[in-house]
Amino acid sequence: MIPTVEWKEGSVWLLDQSRLPGRAELLECKDVAAVASAIQELKVRGAPAIGVTAAMGVALGAQSLSADDVSTFKRHIWAICDQLAATRPTAVNLFWALTRMKKVVEENRDCTVAEIQSRLVREALAIQREDLAMCKALGQQGAGLIKDGHSVLTHCNAGALATAGYGTALGVVRAASEQGKQVHVFANETRPVLQGARLTAWELMEDGIPVTLITDSMAAVVMRQGKIDLCVVGADRIAANGDVANKIGTYAVAVLAKAHNVPFYVAAPSSTIDVSTPSGSDIPIEERPGHEVTTMNGETWIAPKGVAVFNPAFDVTPAKYVTGIITEQGVVSPEQVADTFAN
Amino acid sequence: MIPTVEWKEGSVWLLDQSRLPGRAELLECKDVAAVASAIQELKVRGAPAIGVTAAMGVALGAQSLSADDVSTFKRHIWAICDQLAATRPTAVNLFWALTRMKKVVEENRDCTVAEIQSRLVREALAIQREDLAMCKALGQQGAGLIKDGHSVLTHCNAGALATAGYGTALGVVRAASEQGKQVHVFANETRPVLQGARLTAWELMEDGIPVTLITDSMAAVVMRQGKIDLCVVGADRIAANGDVANKIGTYAVAVLAKAHNVPFYVAAPSSTIDVSTPSGSDIPIEERPGHEVTTMNGETWIAPKGVAVFNPAFDVTPAKYVTGIITEQGVVSPEQVADTFAN
Repeated sequence: MIPTVEWKEGSVWLLDQSRLPGRAELLECKDVAAVASAIQELKVRGAPAIGVTAAMGVALGAQSLSADDVSTFKRHIWAICDQLAATRPTAVNLFWALTRMKKVVEENRDCTVAEIQSRLVREALAIQREDLAMCKALGQQGAGLIKDGHSVLTHCNAGALATAGYGTALGVVRAASEQGKQVHVFANETRPVLQGARLTAWELMEDGIPVTLITDSMAAVVMRQGKIDLCVVGADRIAANGDVANKIGTYAVAVLAKAHNVPFYVAAPSSTIDVSTPSGSDIPIEERPGHEVTTMNGETWIAPKGVAVFNPAFDVTPAKYVTGIITEQGVVSPEQVADTFAN
Repeated sequence: MIPTVEWKEGSVWLLDQSRLPGRAELLECKDVAAVASAIQELKVRGAPAIGVTAAMGVALGAQSLSADDVSTFKRHIWAICDQLAATRPTAVNLFWALTRMKKVVEENRDCTVAEIQSRLVREALAIQREDLAMCKALGQQGAGLIKDGHSVLTHCNAGALATAGYGTALGVVRAASEQGKQVHVFANETRPVLQGARLTAWELMEDGIPVTLITDSMAAVVMRQGKIDLCVVGADRIAANGDVANKIGTYAVAVLAKAHNVPFYVAAPSSTIDVSTPSGSDIPIEERPGHEVTTMNGETWIAPKGVAVFNPAFDVTPAKYVTGIITEQGVVSPEQVADTFAN
């Protein structure tokens, strides 16, 4: 299995996704700052994986605290959570995981610091274990949407690398494939960071699932040619009204899918659903540095130096474009999100 | 002025566009094979520029022929035309220019070979001069569509670099700018070959016209945010029914424009209109090597080695998505193409 993120010997180990597919290198994070940088620099990415990594980051930071009294310890944990929360604004799993970690401290404030430290590690591992289980369950829920011989268009990487394992959108593909169905994936390369080319194509090739790489601008053409039976993408945050924030370019896929009568599904665990965010316009959209667009890996220039760049990392797909949301609890329509996932 | 293609001292000189914006190098083509390679390898690209270059390629080839009799000379010219015609299938200006060059031979078959050689040079220069004039005229025709303060989305490069100078889509922008209007351009980077990032952004910055670079996947978002007043793109071939073949990704822009009620214009000289092609489905669409998608400049891999790739270089936008076609003879609706440009 692809080791997206692991807790080992008191460190957080990440498969450095910024180096894939050229190199599969493990990165050891020994402190919170290293975890925060890894999230910010996209060495780990994908909403569920960010949540797991942040939880492990809190557990890691907690270990190094020497406070004897719980209230000092708690103050430090809150500061660690603030540091991790500041890394990226859009994916709600980050905040969801930090809230769970804080709750462990709150609920165990009568324990010793050592006990809380150990429970924080257990909670992080539980979040990881549950994420994998949710992905497998949502894969099962969604697999029925894919028929034998179907072609699926996906955008970005909502695979094992974006989660604790198995994936969301690619989890659905994997589950269908495991049921013996022939599934072909068209992977949008997903500019500017190329998660589709670098990660989705790599993952699927590792698993022996047929994949064809296209540029994002070709999605409309393959739809028009009748090559796509359905679109399945992941999500970074789903609002109460069913609006979906996901990797930049997802909205274009959704509009194009509607224009070509292709069903458009979003696959996400319930940890990505945020009923406290009323609608997509309330979701903060991260803008990232222009050099992601103007250079390759911050090195080779592929545009004139000094050109103005607009580089939003995510976009919002209004609920009306979403055929269904595939969760571990079943496939729901966007209108059902608020009721199904009410806190 | 940007020297896209020049006839100088009996050679064809090209600004090597494959090296822009990093380096602005002139490339001297001393024989037909060099001209053909330059077209095939995208050192010169853009339908009108390909037409001009091919015409100069014929003139160049003609110069080196030592045949004394016109019928042998003609046979060699036809072979040269075949060689140049085989470089790229989609842009009709290539075939249009070669037909004009052949006609010079036909119409002067009573002249000496030396006379025909000299007339071929004059014809190539006339094609170049007329292309520039057509671009300037269509710029004037289209400028009225752009109001002061407008933002224009464009795809690929339909600029000075794609023509003998001034440009088609960017000619319209230039003309509006020369009329004193503030015009802002959003340039789709245009994967896989990045003509938008490398060429359009560069050209506009050279001219001091404000430009913001986006990835192709962001066009939908800037439209939804109300940032785009109109789309203007070029064309490689316009069929009799008004269907438009242009750089891959144009069709997506057109569908997205319609979904956001943004007018979608195509700017092209009459040499790009091919009434002998009934509809878009009759236009041959070039597929190019996968390494354009999987590597940067055939060097750095940005996808897993061995991944399957679909890489059509063009797509067809059906007439129903086209608000108007801006030509040197005026702005026509796609339905008017056949009548307006009947041979």
